[in-house]
Amino acid sequence: MPIDPRHPKEIRADIRRGAMTGITAGLAPGFVQANLAILPREDAYDFLLFCQRNPRPCPLIEVTDVGSPEPVGVAPGADLRTDIPKYRIYKDGVLADEVTDLTPFWRDDLVSFLLGCSFTFEWALLDAGIPLRHIDEGKNVAMWKTSIACRPAGQFHGPMVVSMRPIPQALLPKAVTASARFPGAHGAPIHMGDPGAIGIADVNRPDWGDSVGVRAGEVPVFWACGVTPQAVALASKPAFMITHSPGYMFITDVPNHALSVM
Amino acid sequence: MPIDPRHPKEIRADIRRGAMTGITAGLAPGFVQANLAILPREDAYDFLLFCQRNPRPCPLIEVTDVGSPEPVGVAPGADLRTDIPKYRIYKDGVLADEVTDLTPFWRDDLVSFLLGCSFTFEWALLDAGIPLRHIDEGKNVAMWKTSIACRPAGQFHGPMVVSMRPIPQALLPKAVTASARFPGAHGAPIHMGDPGAIGIADVNRPDWGDSVGVRAGEVPVFWACGVTPQAVALASKPAFMITHSPGYMFITDVPNHALSVM
Repeated sequence: MPIDPRHPKEIRADIRRGAMTGITAGLAPGFVQANLAILPREDAYDFLLFCQRNPRPCPLIEVTDVGSPEPVGVAPGADLRTDIPKYRIYKDGVLADEVTDLTPFWRDDLVSFLLGCSFTFEWALLDAGIPLRHIDEGKNVAMWKTSIACRPAGQFHGPMVVSMRPIPQALLPKAVTASARFPGAHGAPIHMGDPGAIGIADVNRPDWGDSVGVRAGEVPVFWACGVTPQAVALASKPAFMITHSPGYMFITDVPNHALSVM
Repeated sequence: MPIDPRHPKEIRADIRRGAMTGITAGLAPGFVQANLAILPREDAYDFLLFCQRNPRPCPLIEVTDVGSPEPVGVAPGADLRTDIPKYRIYKDGVLADEVTDLTPFWRDDLVSFLLGCSFTFEWALLDAGIPLRHIDEGKNVAMWKTSIACRPAGQFHGPMVVSMRPIPQALLPKAVTASARFPGAHGAPIHMGDPGAIGIADVNRPDWGDSVGVRAGEVPVFWACGVTPQAVALASKPAFMITHSPGYMFITDVPNHALSVM
């Protein structure tokens, strides 16, 4: 994975002027990257409440003022209409367009939600000496829809989506404590061990992403996944919704360390 | 302080039938007690956003569905209209009434917010062997308005209120780690040392509560305080708002330990 160690401000400027168009993995390492969901104000209360009630899959790190594309809390001066390489526009819950600039689609009633992502806790796991096979093998992390119901909020309800990483048994406690310090990036695992206990029929056949398997001496460890809020929101078919395109995240000015609760 | 070790369900039943009318300190020790704020749906988005943006003073542990008085997430079967001994009703930001039963005042558009309170982290501090002078002396904790501005949200803005506990220098690290594990109850201190640095002119003259002083070898340690959200909400003079009366908290079914992130 190529690394671009520049500050997020410089990288966002390149993205804004169209000079960087790829996925954001490896960019500005050490800084929090975030999932984006944009909804009209009339849907925003239910979505905000859904996130508040389901903090593990939906760790909110920023909510903009109505109509403002500037995430002042995590990246003052940034513009959420231009500073992500690729966006998806949904109408009535159906993908309608994929674009590189939201400016023509912006409306005065839009609210942007930024949610912490697994990059932050994966950085913490690696830092704690825990190997991550999907990274070693250059794959996407494996993800499943589970039998765990999110707590509904207004129009939004649905199952929790999880990602799985096989962890050597001896490193399980460290995997829990290293990720638990980051509730703003999904926090501690929501399940360890038997995949069937959370409704996963086959740990070698993910619903999304790539299979990496679970070897002898390893335990499958499941973390709540940021795919959850988008899947849940889209399932209720909102008239208008925008998200980032998968892999094309928003890069904040917040160091990963700043999300640690201790 | 008299201790009533029964389960919260039994104590709430006594409160509901009018058999317990006092403050809730010492009731159901080990269970989370919560601050209450009730607002109409039209003000609820801004308040929810304010809490999301200011999690230290405003640690949300429950938000009810519109019109429902049941906090299903933290005390299924409870009724927020009757299960707190005393409430305050505000009209246009002014105290209009203090009542023991909200039933006659209930409306279909009300949303109830429950916020974690200092009892939980004080329990964690005591459990870690840290003495708390205001408890030893049977006083209220000392509180101040600070020069730290909360991040505004819509109609709500104002300064952070903090509480202060004098901590022996040797116990400072433990005081931080013990409270940091509980972001749902204000979390780690927001300041340690010089009161003037956060706009407190005289550490012996609190804006609310009782002075306990700071002795040689002690450091004043400041935590964000649950008075903040009520003060901020009332300052914007909402047409209608209900809170618990100070000291008369809602007792949840959630053990203090369950709020720990690790």
